[in-house]
Amino acid sequence: MENFTFKNATKIIFGKDTENQVGIETASYGGKVLLHYGGGSIKKYGLYGRILKSLRDAGLKIIELGGVQPNPRLSLVKKGIDICRKEKVDFILAVGGGSAIDSAKAVASGVSYNGDVWDFYTGKAVVDKVIPVGVVLTIPAAGSEASNGSVITNEEGLYKRAFTSEKLRPRFAILNPEISYTLPSYQTACGVSDIMAHIMERYFTKVKNVDLTDRLCEATLKTVISNIPIILKEPENYEARAEIMWAGTIAHNDILGTGRIGDWGSHGMEHELSGIYDIAHGAGLSIIFPAWMKYVYKQDVEKFAQFAVRVWNVEPDFKDIEKTALEGIETLKDFYEKIGLPITLKEANIPFDRLEEMAEKCTEGGPVGNFVRLDKSDVLEILKLAR
Amino acid sequence: MENFTFKNATKIIFGKDTENQVGIETASYGGKVLLHYGGGSIKKYGLYGRILKSLRDAGLKIIELGGVQPNPRLSLVKKGIDICRKEKVDFILAVGGGSAIDSAKAVASGVSYNGDVWDFYTGKAVVDKVIPVGVVLTIPAAGSEASNGSVITNEEGLYKRAFTSEKLRPRFAILNPEISYTLPSYQTACGVSDIMAHIMERYFTKVKNVDLTDRLCEATLKTVISNIPIILKEPENYEARAEIMWAGTIAHNDILGTGRIGDWGSHGMEHELSGIYDIAHGAGLSIIFPAWMKYVYKQDVEKFAQFAVRVWNVEPDFKDIEKTALEGIETLKDFYEKIGLPITLKEANIPFDRLEEMAEKCTEGGPVGNFVRLDKSDVLEILKLAR
Repeated sequence: MENFTFKNATKIIFGKDTENQVGIETASYGGKVLLHYGGGSIKKYGLYGRILKSLRDAGLKIIELGGVQPNPRLSLVKKGIDICRKEKVDFILAVGGGSAIDSAKAVASGVSYNGDVWDFYTGKAVVDKVIPVGVVLTIPAAGSEASNGSVITNEEGLYKRAFTSEKLRPRFAILNPEISYTLPSYQTACGVSDIMAHIMERYFTKVKNVDLTDRLCEATLKTVISNIPIILKEPENYEARAEIMWAGTIAHNDILGTGRIGDWGSHGMEHELSGIYDIAHGAGLSIIFPAWMKYVYKQDVEKFAQFAVRVWNVEPDFKDIEKTALEGIETLKDFYEKIGLPITLKEANIPFDRLEEMAEKCTEGGPVGNFVRLDKSDVLEILKLAR
Repeated sequence: MENFTFKNATKIIFGKDTENQVGIETASYGGKVLLHYGGGSIKKYGLYGRILKSLRDAGLKIIELGGVQPNPRLSLVKKGIDICRKEKVDFILAVGGGSAIDSAKAVASGVSYNGDVWDFYTGKAVVDKVIPVGVVLTIPAAGSEASNGSVITNEEGLYKRAFTSEKLRPRFAILNPEISYTLPSYQTACGVSDIMAHIMERYFTKVKNVDLTDRLCEATLKTVISNIPIILKEPENYEARAEIMWAGTIAHNDILGTGRIGDWGSHGMEHELSGIYDIAHGAGLSIIFPAWMKYVYKQDVEKFAQFAVRVWNVEPDFKDIEKTALEGIETLKDFYEKIGLPITLKEANIPFDRLEEMAEKCTEGGPVGNFVRLDKSDVLEILKLAR
């Protein structure tokens, strides 16, 4: 196990009707709130009205900025920064999934910074002062509601980049599983793929002797795997929605990564896919992960066999653990297919003519991944395996 | 799953040599520190000197109060409160296990309170202002380093009572597994018993549909169960010590209890044993838990069968799940014995003449336990089963 520091002070408010607490929670941080959200779904299903009422009942002034897109854009972030400066906003409330939250975090970081907020994403600058952010979560997926990260897409060159800072963790996150009832199957499945990826990025590590966090990762994966089929049959099953929603936060609040060095190569590769082709992040991950696994599993066949046996209930073949390991990867692929996700570029209608460009962009800053360091040629091979 | 609120802002600093960071961490909270610890072991093995150096290097003024006993006493707490008032202490650093930490939390709660600090433990008063507490952990067991609780024994009547408040969570906890190398086998095993009890108190719940936290509980239990035999053979095995130490925090930082209502009846019963007979809390728990299980398992045979199969690898007998459930309880008993813990009152040299008195005191405030509500006669039956 590696030495580590862990602190996550995000207050989680979980369960039915909890969105009605948003006004009281927000009022302890600010008086003028930027309400930041995506498209029409929060208005369509009444959430918008309940949040507005709760904020107003708490005496808060509200400025709105909707229109956050999936793979949230830098241009909207800059618009948000301008609004916050002009209106002297002192709290940002993100209502949505990872896109709205990451966009809110970006706005929160940029308001007090004299340069271009993109500097944080390229590593040119380190964030100093941040406006506090709160969350009402609608999509269990990104885990951004309790994470220290933000991912934004810069339209100029379609770069999708991330940055992390402890200052980015939301002050509170309200999680009502009922709000996710109206998520379509495909988006629910994409969320599950993202949750699983956050766990697997941490699970596949070169760090040895990480029993507890291995088992906590496996526990969270098994929960997600066993509950998603229930939701796909019964979208309004509260209990299954609750399991997935809480698992989504646990997967990415950093507790599963304590004492380990995660890989994150697959996230890097996926960002090229969704940056250029604007596909759902979860769909990109279900394409990249199996290909990545096939490319790297020989580095630690035992770990992949453990993954197969403990997560997927593959019967171990002790005379041929490579077979066991490969069976785990195949079972993951089958699972993705069963829940309606693409496992090849072709299935996602992504052409093969820009693979080299993606491999180039992905490794611009040097090799990616920690479990196995991948240079441009490795990334290209993985993208080819994903065709 | 139940609605819940979860927030745990304790900063965990984990790994080799981390105790040398204690001065810097402390300096961000206070200038005058009460250094609170137990007996001579921290001096014997050099930890005391390293901590003193780190605190002094950070320019802190130090007042000392040693002498915390296992099952920490109210009298020392009151002495600590007097010192803090007189010396205008603004931070309390506990160096030790649960006893030193719980004692520090009690002192921290009492300084600004005009009444008797014991009022918090009897529910007569609610804590308001608390001096910040930090921890250097030496014994993985109580989980107090990141918990919201404190347990103190009042010598008058030998009452051992607990209280909880979010204000009690330590600001930071330094966990260096190397520091636990010198813990004797028996104390290490008692710690493991305490850790397991914190998980099992949460695991056995009447709340249904708690898949994720069930699995996280099982993961943490399995980690503890598989690592303690390594430590008993190799006390200086860093990796196994690290697994147990981090598991001890995870077991009681409340993440495993999210969405559930824990039982806590066995803790209530054990407090009578260690309150009167001053045995190690972990030893009391290894006596009480199997008896409690035998008394209550019929309330939810399926859950006990799950415990047997998932935690103890008992082969399920689907035609006789009661047999499976009972096999799990027997395996737990065997495990306690193998790691050197008593499983009967007799083995702990506790006479049987005060069982009724204990049952009476335990249920003074009404029935205990949530999985099954236990009144005085139930508690007496369980104590008899534990003979």
